[in-house]
Amino acid sequence: MQLTIIGCHAATPRKNAQTTAQLLEIKGHLMLIDCGEGTQMQLRKLGVKFARIQHIFISHLHGDHFYGLIGLISTFRLLGREADLHIYGPKGIKEIITLQLKLAKSWTDYALYFHELDHTESVVVFDDEKIKVSTVPLDHRVYTNGYFFEEKVGSRKINSEAAKNHGVEVCDMENLKSGKDFINTAGELISNAQLTFDPEPPKSYAFCSDTAYKEDIVPIIANATMLYHESTFLKNHLDLAAKTKHSTAGQAAQIAAKAQVGGLILGHYSTRYGDLNAFVAEAQESFQNVYLAEDNKVFDI
Amino acid sequence: MQLTIIGCHAATPRKNAQTTAQLLEIKGHLMLIDCGEGTQMQLRKLGVKFARIQHIFISHLHGDHFYGLIGLISTFRLLGREADLHIYGPKGIKEIITLQLKLAKSWTDYALYFHELDHTESVVVFDDEKIKVSTVPLDHRVYTNGYFFEEKVGSRKINSEAAKNHGVEVCDMENLKSGKDFINTAGELISNAQLTFDPEPPKSYAFCSDTAYKEDIVPIIANATMLYHESTFLKNHLDLAAKTKHSTAGQAAQIAAKAQVGGLILGHYSTRYGDLNAFVAEAQESFQNVYLAEDNKVFDI
Repeated sequence: MQLTIIGCHAATPRKNAQTTAQLLEIKGHLMLIDCGEGTQMQLRKLGVKFARIQHIFISHLHGDHFYGLIGLISTFRLLGREADLHIYGPKGIKEIITLQLKLAKSWTDYALYFHELDHTESVVVFDDEKIKVSTVPLDHRVYTNGYFFEEKVGSRKINSEAAKNHGVEVCDMENLKSGKDFINTAGELISNAQLTFDPEPPKSYAFCSDTAYKEDIVPIIANATMLYHESTFLKNHLDLAAKTKHSTAGQAAQIAAKAQVGGLILGHYSTRYGDLNAFVAEAQESFQNVYLAEDNKVFDI
Repeated sequence: MQLTIIGCHAATPRKNAQTTAQLLEIKGHLMLIDCGEGTQMQLRKLGVKFARIQHIFISHLHGDHFYGLIGLISTFRLLGREADLHIYGPKGIKEIITLQLKLAKSWTDYALYFHELDHTESVVVFDDEKIKVSTVPLDHRVYTNGYFFEEKVGSRKINSEAAKNHGVEVCDMENLKSGKDFINTAGELISNAQLTFDPEPPKSYAFCSDTAYKEDIVPIIANATMLYHESTFLKNHLDLAAKTKHSTAGQAAQIAAKAQVGGLILGHYSTRYGDLNAFVAEAQESFQNVYLAEDNKVFDI
């Protein structure tokens, strides 16, 4: 699993400060999470193949998280896209996008599906053989969801040497991978455990932005391999965080600690701070494994 | 009068290729013309003081001409803008912008005025003591207007030496500037012509994008000091120009020649062309004084 931070700054895009967008490579999918203004230019700089992006998850309808979406949808059309595109986001997102396409007389030639959300509980929004994506209901000034991306348990790994010794043929492999035992030509049962290794433990990634401190999300994202949790402020601006329904670095770390995640990525920094190391220091008072999001930074999870 | 090309490329914003936006400084006004995605970042790079922009003219509702508008409006709000903002553009633009502000629960604290257009004839959209702005009805796939910015004739310039010789006092100056004659203390009439010089001839700028070749605009923009006319294509793609309702460099030059403008700026180049000098060469077959728009290029008019 690989996470690319396309932008991680709050409020307004500036030179060397892109607003929120992330690209998650997970089990062959390339998922775009939020889409601030200018995301399409950043994706081009990164050399991302546009057709690979088939699912876009929008957390909420504040500009720094989705003003780049209509431009991306239009550019896909201009470049002759054929692949379907699925947009997940708050109720209203379909009206915004379709109104603009209508007035521009620019309907997409590819299929564009909107999955509008208004649930207040976590729901599964995407589910296939390899991964599952659920919403993480957050607490912000407008209706907002984070997203939890979970790999499913993969098939068992063949122990090639043992398989050879027990006379396993190619046609038997799928049964072994699915956990079945093996009966050899002499009629003896060889247990699956003798012929396979456990699959790699599934990984997961939780994206939580924007939100006030909200303990309710802990059971939803528990044991995530990696958590991105917004930290717009430091604790000296706790009042501002409460007023604007954002979090401090310390609060993000408390969520990370309670959810017992593997690591915490901080981001969505307010423009008022110069030195971001203070965010790490504050977070590490409650949780050790802390990283700073930076535009164009890649995390191998 | 000074024109800054913020972006001049067609279709999609890319690295080193911004979509359409221009900044016209005219008689103390700073007018923004079109507003492609990422315009706010370009304005910041140029160090433009946002509060000075009080009028934004949008030609049409294709993304490469206005997807940066909602972000700019939002950023103005976040930065605590107090000055009024006037938006001129096709009917529908108010609905697009207000829908997004409503769903983001982010009404602007400053006054936001929409001047929606649906006229098919040229109309005056702005008029004060110093300048006048009219629409230039164009012919594109959606309803589109260019804009014609005209300085008004300024006041007469005082001939300081003559004024001194004839005993003109400071309190008489405004009358002289407005063209009145002067009566000296001896009761003699001194004609205005003896005491003043002609004002500088007023300048004008015509912005015409996007459009098919349309001769009807010639009388509207006649004698413009400078004309920007789109040239998406070269003449070898005349069929494409007709089909997509764009112009070739040659057609732009024919309009410039017929309107007897002072100079022609070409822009809105299709991505398919590498060498832009071919645009100049083609245009100069009918009009000599041709310039190429480039992102961040400044024209002193």
